[in-house]
Parts: sequence; structure tokens; C-alpha cells
Amino acid sequence: MANKSPETEHPQKAFGWAARDNSGVLSPFNFSRRENGDEDVTIKIHFCGICHSDLHSLKNEWGFSRYPMVPGHEIVGIVTKLGSNVSKFKEGDRVGVGVMVGSCKSCDYCNQDLENYCPQMVFTYNATYIDGTRTYGGYSDMIVVDQRFVVRFPESMPFDAGAPLLCAGVTVYSPMKYYGMTEAGKHLGIVGLGGLGHVALKIGKAFGLKVTVISRSADKEIEAVERLGADAFLVSSDPLKIKAGFGTMDYIIDTVSAVHSLAPLLALLKPNGKLITLGLPDKPLELPIFPLVLGRKLVGGSDIGGMKETQEMLDFCAKHGITADVEVIPIDQVNVALDRLAKSDVRYRFVIDVANSMSK
Amino acid sequence: MANKSPETEHPQKAFGWAARDNSGVLSPFNFSRRENGDEDVTIKIHFCGICHSDLHSLKNEWGFSRYPMVPGHEIVGIVTKLGSNVSKFKEGDRVGVGVMVGSCKSCDYCNQDLENYCPQMVFTYNATYIDGTRTYGGYSDMIVVDQRFVVRFPESMPFDAGAPLLCAGVTVYSPMKYYGMTEAGKHLGIVGLGGLGHVALKIGKAFGLKVTVISRSADKEIEAVERLGADAFLVSSDPLKIKAGFGTMDYIIDTVSAVHSLAPLLALLKPNGKLITLGLPDKPLELPIFPLVLGRKLVGGSDIGGMKETQEMLDFCAKHGITADVEVIPIDQVNVALDRLAKSDVRYRFVIDVANSMSK
Repeated sequence: MANKSPETEHPQKAFGWAARDNSGVLSPFNFSRRENGDEDVTIKIHFCGICHSDLHSLKNEWGFSRYPMVPGHEIVGIVTKLGSNVSKFKEGDRVGVGVMVGSCKSCDYCNQDLENYCPQMVFTYNATYIDGTRTYGGYSDMIVVDQRFVVRFPESMPFDAGAPLLCAGVTVYSPMKYYGMTEAGKHLGIVGLGGLGHVALKIGKAFGLKVTVISRSADKEIEAVERLGADAFLVSSDPLKIKAGFGTMDYIIDTVSAVHSLAPLLALLKPNGKLITLGLPDKPLELPIFPLVLGRKLVGGSDIGGMKETQEMLDFCAKHGITADVEVIPIDQVNVALDRLAKSDVRYRFVIDVANSMSK
Repeated sequence: MANKSPETEHPQKAFGWAARDNSGVLSPFNFSRRENGDEDVTIKIHFCGICHSDLHSLKNEWGFSRYPMVPGHEIVGIVTKLGSNVSKFKEGDRVGVGVMVGSCKSCDYCNQDLENYCPQMVFTYNATYIDGTRTYGGYSDMIVVDQRFVVRFPESMPFDAGAPLLCAGVTVYSPMKYYGMTEAGKHLGIVGLGGLGHVALKIGKAFGLKVTVISRSADKEIEAVERLGADAFLVSSDPLKIKAGFGTMDYIIDTVSAVHSLAPLLALLKPNGKLITLGLPDKPLELPIFPLVLGRKLVGGSDIGGMKETQEMLDFCAKHGITADVEVIPIDQVNVALDRLAKSDVRYRFVIDVANSMSK
């Protein structure tokens, strides 16, 4: 099957926007999706968020990109077809698909609802599916997904502003749960006020935490405190202000992907504090060991979340009225949006209005 | 009081061996101990272990040494005097004193039995006590210690081989409990088979773990597996063997103080694995972020343990017949022993026979 063209390898016709090379420029693309199998759900895509990792993948910055590539893993839409074994959904249901569309379903990780750590986990795009064909993401009109990797999208949650939660939301929610960072009254620092950071702020407040935003940009202070409800703001480039915060935080979520210094972040933590890194710097960071040992601090990572936890996170966000702050664009502005995202010029997530703007 | 000489500042005469400068060479030293207060226990010292941090301190390798310095924080002996508020002990009791002799007793950490993370924690030697005088350690004939920082030494545990547990034992036991590394059947890697490593091996086996020793020295394999009961052995300098172990370990305890690479250790861990560093390299280590994020791995530290946990550890070791492997020396061989320790030429801990060899 791998020898067939993307347009003819499967029976269901699909249309999206794809990059053809590491210029990362997207353009219209005719391809196909597999027939809806017994375990599958076919989804008409309504919106798809633009995640920062789409940018890395499009430009092959992580070194494993293959083209043509249809990105997009913050997918929301409506169920249009159900496999014979699917009882969890019905036609017309509002559903979401996040970063993964497959896993082995039988390893220790899958058995613990941690499909995201399954060695055979299949990414929603730029990956090889179980049948040997390439996966294409949500910058497209429809998708066929194994029901295990489809979540129910809460009725009260808007499609556009909710879509980014499928990646950004669970990426910050999962480590907060796993590392025990949800105790009301504790002090959470969030490094970087972007797609992940602004959702972490909202989720942190919903857990009853005191939240301080740590950012390079002093001009984000009013936004962070007055509009998004942060309790405090620290400019990371001001050593005096940073120093005044030393030893005051219980947890830090670090969303920065660029190479940066961990030492001041570890110093901001109290003894027994936890620093969770979610960005993916392409070089190792310097890790001072003394604060880890003397203060029993830890540096941990986390990668999205399992499907059960993704559903839990969506339900939590719906209950607390949490969505992402989004800028909705038609598909023909996607290349402009990607350029702006590369300059962090978005508050805070672009979402493509697929259903209303994507046609052949 | 700080202006008085060590010999006259306190009423109780004491005798030990002290270093006078950062040559670290020890020689006989007359000094004094405070009167036994209401909360205090006076202890005739029988044995004192030689910890690797004694070496760092004696030579001022961490930069905060003051002389004269009497090292020693693995102290065992017999109670000879009790303050009026001491009900926990009686004269003649076998007791131990570890790395600390004081703390504020009122902060959040002290209230959680985590005196070791109290900002006012007082080290057993080379520190300033609450009364403003210097602390002197266990290379000496007697010591006066607040009862909170004295533990009961199990009857079945020999003084000499048990003494090192007061530092080395709790240093490995505490992180195993805190980070959840005690699930029987899980796979623990131990980097470095020295004072800490060989105790970690024994405690790991007592928890029912599969234990693999990771060492630079291939010649330690027989010792590790046949005598100490490790399940497997990996030579860290053999890239092929290390690679064969990738993704097989649940936890790693890293006891190495030299600057070394964390990347292969993180690769040895399974997803969700935990790497605990106990050594204190004087430069930052390189931390690759991808394995942390993609595998939800963490790097954490830990520093000894609280007094309650120190007692728990001793009782656990007594129950499981765990002691350190020691080489007992008279005090007049202490400088030779320190030289040998600097070359890792000891299996696995020197212990000074204080009671039988120290006299003015």
C-alpha cells in the first residue's frame, strides 16, 4: 500500500492542506482516508488548532519529518460514520482527536491508560499507522480514527476555543496531576505565557493555586494579571526581581522550548519543589545538582496524556469554563498564521475554521 | 562565647582529632562540649563512620569549611547523661547521631518531620549551633545532642557496621520512599558501588527489587553479584552493554559525585522512570530534555532524611539484617584511611573504633 499515491491508497476521498518540503509552506492537497473499520469513527472536521509543534514538524526541526505532511492534532468535529463495534459514540456527536491516533493497546502502558507512553504510539500526523500508511492530521476536511483515540467533546464547550485543549490542555493538566501539583493554596510558577502557558494559568487557578507568570516580556504583565487572572508576574530578565522570588514557589511549569537556564527556576522553588519542563530544546540544558540534592527538588517532563485523562481534562475544563484564547482563521491564512506563530505573535492559539473555509 | 577557645568555651572537656587547615590532615585536639541541657543527651562515642563528605569538608572542596574541624556524622555510642525533659532515652541506651544536630523545630518542614530541609538545620560538624558556637563531629570521645536528633540504635545491630547507616543508609532509603521506588519486582539500577551504592543494593533487595549495579570497574562484577547479591552488573564504560540495557530500568540511584553524563542513565530508564542523584558534582551536568518529556522521566535529588525516617530506616535495616560492609580502624590510622578513601580504596566504609583507640 505504501507504494500507492496518497490520493488513491484508500477508498475515502479527503482534502487538506499539506507541506511538500521543509519550507513548511502549506498548499491544497488531495489525499484519501481508510474505509471506516469496525472500531473506527469517521469525523467531519470543524476546527483544528495550530500547535507550536506543527511548526517544528513542518520545517523538519526535529529531523523526522516526511512530506507531503498534513499537520494538525487539535481536531474537533462531528461524527458521521461508526464502525460496528463502536458503542461509545453516535452519529452527530461532538468529538475531539488529539496528538495520537493509535497504540498497541496491550502493553503495560496501554493497560494503565497511558497510551501516550506506549512504544508503538502513533502520532496523528507525520507517522506510520498500523496498516503501514502515513497519518495525516487535522488541517483537512475529515478523518477516520479508532474510537479509543476519540474523546467526547463537552456540550458546553465551544469548538473553536476548546480545540487547543486537546493538545495544550492535556499537556499541562497531565503533569499537574501526575506530579501532585494541584493542592489548593500552593504557589505555581508558569514560565512562558504562550499557548501552553495561558492554559496552565487557567487550569492552575481552577485548582485553587496561587499562580505567578514568569516571562521575558514585561509588557505581558497587565495581560497576565488583569485579563488572565494571574496573582503575580515576574520578568525573567530582571535578576533583582527574580532573586526576590527565590524559595517561594511549590511548583513550576516551564513551557519554553529555547535553550535556557534552569538554575534560577530551581532557585525560585521551595525545598521539595518540582520543576516540570514541557518544551523541547534541541540541546541539553545545564542542570545544577546542588539544589536538587540539598532541597530535594526534581526536574521532570511529561508528554500530553492518556485518552482517559484527556477526557477527564476536557470535562474538568468544561466544568470550570476553561477554554483557550484563540484567533480563528480561514485555511487560506494558515501560512501567515504560521509565520506569526514563529514570532510568538498570537494570543494565544490560532485555530483554523476548517468546516467553513476548506474546499477543493 | 565565640571568642573563647574551643577548649574553654564550654564546661565539659572533650577530645577528638581535628584538621587545622585544608590539607585535611587530622591530629589530636582538645576542645569542649556544652553542659547537658534539659533537652540534651550526652553520649560516649564508640564508633564513627568516615563518610565521603568528611573528605570534601576537610579539604574545603565545597568552600565553606572552617578550622579547626572535627569531622564525623555517623556516630554511635552509649547514653551517659540525660536532660530533665528527656524521656525517650535512659542511661546506657545504645543511640546514634547522624548528619544534623539541630533545626528550628517550628517551620513547615520540621512540623512534617523533615528537619533535613529546615532552613535553620544545623550540621553535626563544621556548622554554627543555635548558641553561636561551632559544632564538632564524631571523631571525638563524646558529644552532647538535643534528643530530637538522637535515634535509638536497634539492639540487634552491631555498632561498627551499623554506624554508616546513619548517613549512607538514610541517604538512599529516604529517596526510595519519597519517590516511590519500593515496589517489589521493579528494576533498580545503582550507579557506583561505594559507601552509598552497596547500602542501596542491600536496601533495594530488602524491598524485593531487581537490582543492577552500574560501575566503571568491570572487576567489581563478581563482588557485586556473588557477594552482595546484585541481580546483574553493567560496565558503564562499555557502550554496547549499556545500550542493551536501554529502557529496562524503573529507577536509578546515582551515587557518583564526579561530573558525568546523565543521557545514558536516562536511556536505561523505562518510560516514567526515575533517576535520583545523590552525589554533589561541583559543576552542572548536561540534562537532555527529550527523554524527560517523551518518557515522563524525572531527575530528582534527596538529602539524608528526617529524624523520624532515620529511625524508621534503622529499624527496617535491623529487621532485614542490613548493615554496611566496613573496615574498622583505630583513630591513629585515620589519615591513611582518608587517603585510601580518596582513591575509592575501601570496601565499603571505614569506621573509627573511637572507644578503644581515642585517648589523650
